[in-house]
Amino acid sequence: MSGNLVGIDIGGTKILIILSDINGHIKKQVEIPTTSEYPGAILGRIVLELKTFGKIDSIGIGIAGDIDSKNGILRFSPNLLKWKNVRLKKYFESKMKVPTIVENDANCAAYGSYVLDGERKYKNLITITLGTGIGGGIIIDGKLYRGSTGTAGEVGHITINPDGPKCNCGNNGCLETYIGKKGIMNIAKKVGFHKKNLTPAIIADEARKGNKKAKSIFNKVSEYLAAGVGSLVNIFNPDMITFSGGISNNWDLIEKILKRDLKKRTFKTPLEHVKIIKSSNNKNLGAIGAAFLSKER
Amino acid sequence: MSGNLVGIDIGGTKILIILSDINGHIKKQVEIPTTSEYPGAILGRIVLELKTFGKIDSIGIGIAGDIDSKNGILRFSPNLLKWKNVRLKKYFESKMKVPTIVENDANCAAYGSYVLDGERKYKNLITITLGTGIGGGIIIDGKLYRGSTGTAGEVGHITINPDGPKCNCGNNGCLETYIGKKGIMNIAKKVGFHKKNLTPAIIADEARKGNKKAKSIFNKVSEYLAAGVGSLVNIFNPDMITFSGGISNNWDLIEKILKRDLKKRTFKTPLEHVKIIKSSNNKNLGAIGAAFLSKER
Repeated sequence: MSGNLVGIDIGGTKILIILSDINGHIKKQVEIPTTSEYPGAILGRIVLELKTFGKIDSIGIGIAGDIDSKNGILRFSPNLLKWKNVRLKKYFESKMKVPTIVENDANCAAYGSYVLDGERKYKNLITITLGTGIGGGIIIDGKLYRGSTGTAGEVGHITINPDGPKCNCGNNGCLETYIGKKGIMNIAKKVGFHKKNLTPAIIADEARKGNKKAKSIFNKVSEYLAAGVGSLVNIFNPDMITFSGGISNNWDLIEKILKRDLKKRTFKTPLEHVKIIKSSNNKNLGAIGAAFLSKER
Repeated sequence: MSGNLVGIDIGGTKILIILSDINGHIKKQVEIPTTSEYPGAILGRIVLELKTFGKIDSIGIGIAGDIDSKNGILRFSPNLLKWKNVRLKKYFESKMKVPTIVENDANCAAYGSYVLDGERKYKNLITITLGTGIGGGIIIDGKLYRGSTGTAGEVGHITINPDGPKCNCGNNGCLETYIGKKGIMNIAKKVGFHKKNLTPAIIADEARKGNKKAKSIFNKVSEYLAAGVGSLVNIFNPDMITFSGGISNNWDLIEKILKRDLKKRTFKTPLEHVKIIKSSNNKNLGAIGAAFLSKER
């Protein structure tokens, strides 16, 4: 069990730090709240934690936003609006004296899933994160595919209806407008499922208890998801598609309808080939993927 | 100008044979009609032609259909229904004594476009063929991306409306149902543009002459196309997207609206980066790409 790889998943509400070997065996795991809006205090706090980790070989940082992964700079993050052009690589390399990489969190999740769910055998793999927003990361031939300027993998922004609802990104009818958190709430409204402080988790609970309207909401989510995933199967002909993120915890309410619809929406050979699963490492995939990526560079 | 590469594009109505160097300078070009439904006579005819070509280094064959590119077998072609499990690689290697590869025609076009339009500098490139059907081929990091079972690149079968018109593939609302030949005819019907023996070429001619209805048909085509291409920009973040195929000859009627809509449908950074053009080698891209691919293997 070689390697002391640190993976750090910096989110808007909490920061997850893990110490893993190259096979994903976690030796240590720390969670700290994102207490400040500004990077200074938070980064100092992370370094303090890392100093207690003993020997470290490399650091990988996963974070949502616009990343210059070549230079390890976070240009902008939607979850941490005060973090602008933060030189994360430079900061950690100077404080911790080990190679550091910075990568989009969805890309980290994809790479983590490639190693853990796919055991590095499923060379062409897409991980879709289902949460407030819909993200994605793409592995091609066992390597993270970043695209030409580092923004590849935005599977939440596949247009599934040119005249659909307005998306935050400016487009209409993105997959995210249908099955992101807001999209799910819109479906709930449409089918007449009303409740105070409604969340996708509450809808899922009700669906499991047998509430038909709640169930129909997840059926609809699964159908829209199939439209997006079907396109990915036809375009990429991948070995594996995995799901992570909070909403993927409702895989039991999604899988059946998703796979039924995919039979209609995709070509036979690629569908028969591709393995479609919920990631079994949902909670720390971003941090673990970041750790693995720190070793790949 | 080294290399004597043969590229053969086998279509349902004609077969194009070219002799090219590795830079795409064409030394010889022969077109023969696809006179028989069966492979035997046609393949014999091709070999007779090739015997007049002088020294040949390698052969690449591009053909529409389900290809086992590893073994060089055409399993099935929609344009040549009597061709089933034809061992093209084995046949040409035994008759011509040079290495032969067989590849899907849309993949060949993409590789041809990568070399000729992109001059091997645009490493991530997608070529979309606009014709009776809508096809595509993907170049990742300068290499043809075939997918895990060889069927990647089916960009005509991106779902742009889950409840859209029925597609030949069994799905509803594929991009192809909107902007394939049949899709264009449907738009013509909807806008009330009627003519005997109407074709996309006739509509284009009328549009160029100022006919408003004809123009509105191509505007609509461009809008649907933007929905599909926008998704590709967001997913792939490519360096270049090129268009080939008969309908791409109407680029003058497509480009403006397509690019206008892409501004709405895509993220800013990848759109600013990607070069979107009509291939300048529209007519023999499949044959040339096949020739180039024969050298890459």
